[in-house]
Amino acid sequence: MNGLFITFEGVEGAGKTTVLSYIYQELEQKGYDVIKTREPGGIEISEKIREVILDKNHTAMDGRTEALLYAAARRQHLVERVVPALKEGQIVLCDRFIDSSLAYQGYARDLGMDEVYTVNKFAIENCMPDLTVLFSLDPKFGLKRIADNKGREQNRLDLEKVSFHEKVAEAYRILEDRFPKRIRSIDASQSLESVQNECLHLIESYLNR
Amino acid sequence: MNGLFITFEGVEGAGKTTVLSYIYQELEQKGYDVIKTREPGGIEISEKIREVILDKNHTAMDGRTEALLYAAARRQHLVERVVPALKEGQIVLCDRFIDSSLAYQGYARDLGMDEVYTVNKFAIENCMPDLTVLFSLDPKFGLKRIADNKGREQNRLDLEKVSFHEKVAEAYRILEDRFPKRIRSIDASQSLESVQNECLHLIESYLNR
Repeated sequence: MNGLFITFEGVEGAGKTTVLSYIYQELEQKGYDVIKTREPGGIEISEKIREVILDKNHTAMDGRTEALLYAAARRQHLVERVVPALKEGQIVLCDRFIDSSLAYQGYARDLGMDEVYTVNKFAIENCMPDLTVLFSLDPKFGLKRIADNKGREQNRLDLEKVSFHEKVAEAYRILEDRFPKRIRSIDASQSLESVQNECLHLIESYLNR
Repeated sequence: MNGLFITFEGVEGAGKTTVLSYIYQELEQKGYDVIKTREPGGIEISEKIREVILDKNHTAMDGRTEALLYAAARRQHLVERVVPALKEGQIVLCDRFIDSSLAYQGYARDLGMDEVYTVNKFAIENCMPDLTVLFSLDPKFGLKRIADNKGREQNRLDLEKVSFHEKVAEAYRILEDRFPKRIRSIDASQSLESVQNECLHLIESYLNR
């Protein structure tokens, strides 16, 4: 596979999704063959799995069941969307991937980072991201941004306690130490423009390495 | 947990399900507190997951996605049905469990027994069966039994090639070597009455050990 797999990670409200769209447009304008995606990404099987996860009647859902379902949805999205693009030499920008499971399920929900990593390694085989951009931010700022953004609908995770999001942020710091070559962090407390510029510079440096 | 978790395993047409019902009735008549079950077993979340697996539109389903979904359905059935029964001291008879995944997905479908075992260990945590009754049978006989049994509707697995079922049988022999304390095999080519008697004897010996 001669494409490049780049993932975007970070706490809620860090600006990942907005910056990802910007990077996508910039790279496309510069002539790169690039796609953007996120799980479940319209992949039918992954969408069906996500419906089972998010079904409000499923209050009895066990944490390990949920982690296995996320891994299953990830696998199918990877096989149907990401791998074919990488095989065609495309740059794939993906909004959240394995590190989100490690941070949210593995660490913040206490299932164990190593155990969730094992399940996810089964799901993704050898297809780890080439580069992961981590949007570092004090989760309190992220949550305030979300609360101030009237246009954004709050999701299940936005409504978790601050302490939960602080555990997620801590998990990302652990992951940064664990995968120093793959994960590069950006200070996401800067202005949107600064974050976009820093992210674009980081990715272009990687492309021209 | 002071109950006892007994699983029934074997190739198609080996008589597991029939014998399990017999054992259930016998143990109940003898005054044991016993339940019988099989995945997804009416557990809503597991049933929903099974629907995703079996949906005929999902021809793009990857083997690893399927294995993760089976593990997720297993987890939820275990948490909602098996563990509460074991905590109440019941004997749980379960038609197929982890060894089916190791034999079918891990070995016959070539995903790797160790890898599928890793995912399933995450799913079941420490809740391995106390005893597994393996119905040993040349798969050709099993398939013939199924074909002769007009009352039984053929399922997706019944329609696989003989070579597939031979790989499953081989996998069960490997598992028997790997877990000699847990797995006890019965010659399922005998008459139904003989198999039932042998199975009952085996389980009662275990209960009175």
